Amino acid sequence: MTTGIEGILETALYVDDLNVAESFYAGVLGLELILKQPDRHVFFRCGPGVLLLFHADHSSIPAEPGMLPVPTHGADGPAHMCFRMAAENMDAMVARLSAAGVPLEADFHWPNGARSIYFRDPAGNSLECAEARLWQINED
Amino acid sequence: MTTGIEGILETALYVDDLNVAESFYAGVLGLELILKQPDRHVFFRCGPGVLLLFHADHSSIPAEPGMLPVPTHGADGPAHMCFRMAAENMDAMVARLSAAGVPLEADFHWPNGARSIYFRDPAGNSLECAEARLWQINED
Repeated sequence: MTTGIEGILETALYVDDLNVAESFYAGVLGLELILKQPDRHVFFRCGPGVLLLFHADHSSIPAEPGMLPVPTHGADGPAHMCFRMAAENMDAMVARLSAAGVPLEADFHWPNGARSIYFRDPAGNSLECAEARLWQINED
Repeated sequence: MTTGIEGILETALYVDDLNVAESFYAGVLGLELILKQPDRHVFFRCGPGVLLLFHADHSSIPAEPGMLPVPTHGADGPAHMCFRMAAENMDAMVARLSAAGVPLEADFHWPNGARSIYFRDPAGNSLECAEARLWQINED
């Protein structure tokens, strides 16, 4: 793009219990943990990007003098994000979620044929796995 | 990854005024609008992913019978996301933000040398542009 934005590098969600969240995102979803600061955040690699999970009570505290001046943020309530997943892997994810006792909230095909499955993380955030062709993005 | 998650396809933020948000994300940040439902959402292409902006008052309303059963969601308060940007484009973005009257909230280099700039969208969300090497991700 002309302004130099190449894509999304970090996506953030807010959770009420970072340990429970870590168990879910690493153990059930299989994401690779890359950074952790107890009580404040836990970060996961996710393909060419990073998924940041924060405890909003802590990410909303201003950085102390002498620290890097990372701005505050922190949201409440169920947010949304969607993982990119090929169609042939969706049934296995549905089975994996079921085995972990995670209810499937929705499972349908969009008008263009792309399948989406929806479920919640332990904090209530709405997570989706969808085929990239939902947005006319190449599958490769 | 073994669970089939390939990356992040959709990142969502919540805003209080979709028209103001559209002007900012399209006009200032230069993102390509791909879908819009007045009062509910506006979606932008962002490299290999999609940025979803929702009005939480509307995305938290359950889908009506006969519609696709898209689950509800909707958060309050300032969230965070980060755009991927090469180092050589950062000064131009800083100038672009300044010309649009958007204050730069932070501008620093992380311990590994990667530069990040931070600013707010009109709804107060904390936006960042950072070099991909912040997370040991290739620049190409």
